[in-house]
Amino acid sequence: MTTSPNHRPGTHVLADFWDCGPGLDDADALRRLLLSAAEACGARAINIKVHDFGEGAGVTGFALLAESHISAHSWPELGYLAFDIFLCGDRDPAPALDIFRRHYRPAREEIRRVERGLAFSDRAGGGR
Amino acid sequence: MTTSPNHRPGTHVLADFWDCGPGLDDADALRRLLLSAAEACGARAINIKVHDFGEGAGVTGFALLAESHISAHSWPELGYLAFDIFLCGDRDPAPALDIFRRHYRPAREEIRRVERGLAFSDRAGGGR
Repeated sequence: MTTSPNHRPGTHVLADFWDCGPGLDDADALRRLLLSAAEACGARAINIKVHDFGEGAGVTGFALLAESHISAHSWPELGYLAFDIFLCGDRDPAPALDIFRRHYRPAREEIRRVERGLAFSDRAGGGR
Repeated sequence: MTTSPNHRPGTHVLADFWDCGPGLDDADALRRLLLSAAEACGARAINIKVHDFGEGAGVTGFALLAESHISAHSWPELGYLAFDIFLCGDRDPAPALDIFRRHYRPAREEIRRVERGLAFSDRAGGGR
């Protein structure tokens, strides 16, 4: 990753999805969602891995991107999904969030947005 | 993942490491660190993937854990590493953070700790 404007440390979004619809234990769906979410944000997926804990115990997955990552971990017994997306540069993670939201349909959610790598960047002297 | 006490949605730590020592472009080291960090936290690594962008452009990697994940993305030209670890239950991510800190030796850092899945958990009625 270089310091061209669209490769600076970027935005990390953490999403808690509660009271989701069905499908929190569907590994194939998660794999498709990770790929779709990456594409929707203009990101390139280097590797996608999804694991099914089996017997309704949830699924977990990760997309390693050239522009950082997307992850998701489900708790079907709680109706809960933990999702996060970190995209470098000025890329907007909202399309990925929308894709996951449309599929899992949480009745309630909490979204936290964290700008990475800003605290000392002025003093670090690196390019932004 | 189940709702036994050590499997509730847990703690997500985001670490920005600035002015790191050498090695931000060492993919083999990152792979070893991801595995060591998982073990140090008593976590089980399901899959570890590291990618080298080549020519000093940085490395990126993740460890998918039974207890969620660890990720790291480097910017050698900035001397910067973005690291995050999400562990379910009451597991403490500090050992992982220490392992990464000892290796990369940031002169400055910013650590943010986010408790996942708490906002509505009382009303969700799920087990904790």
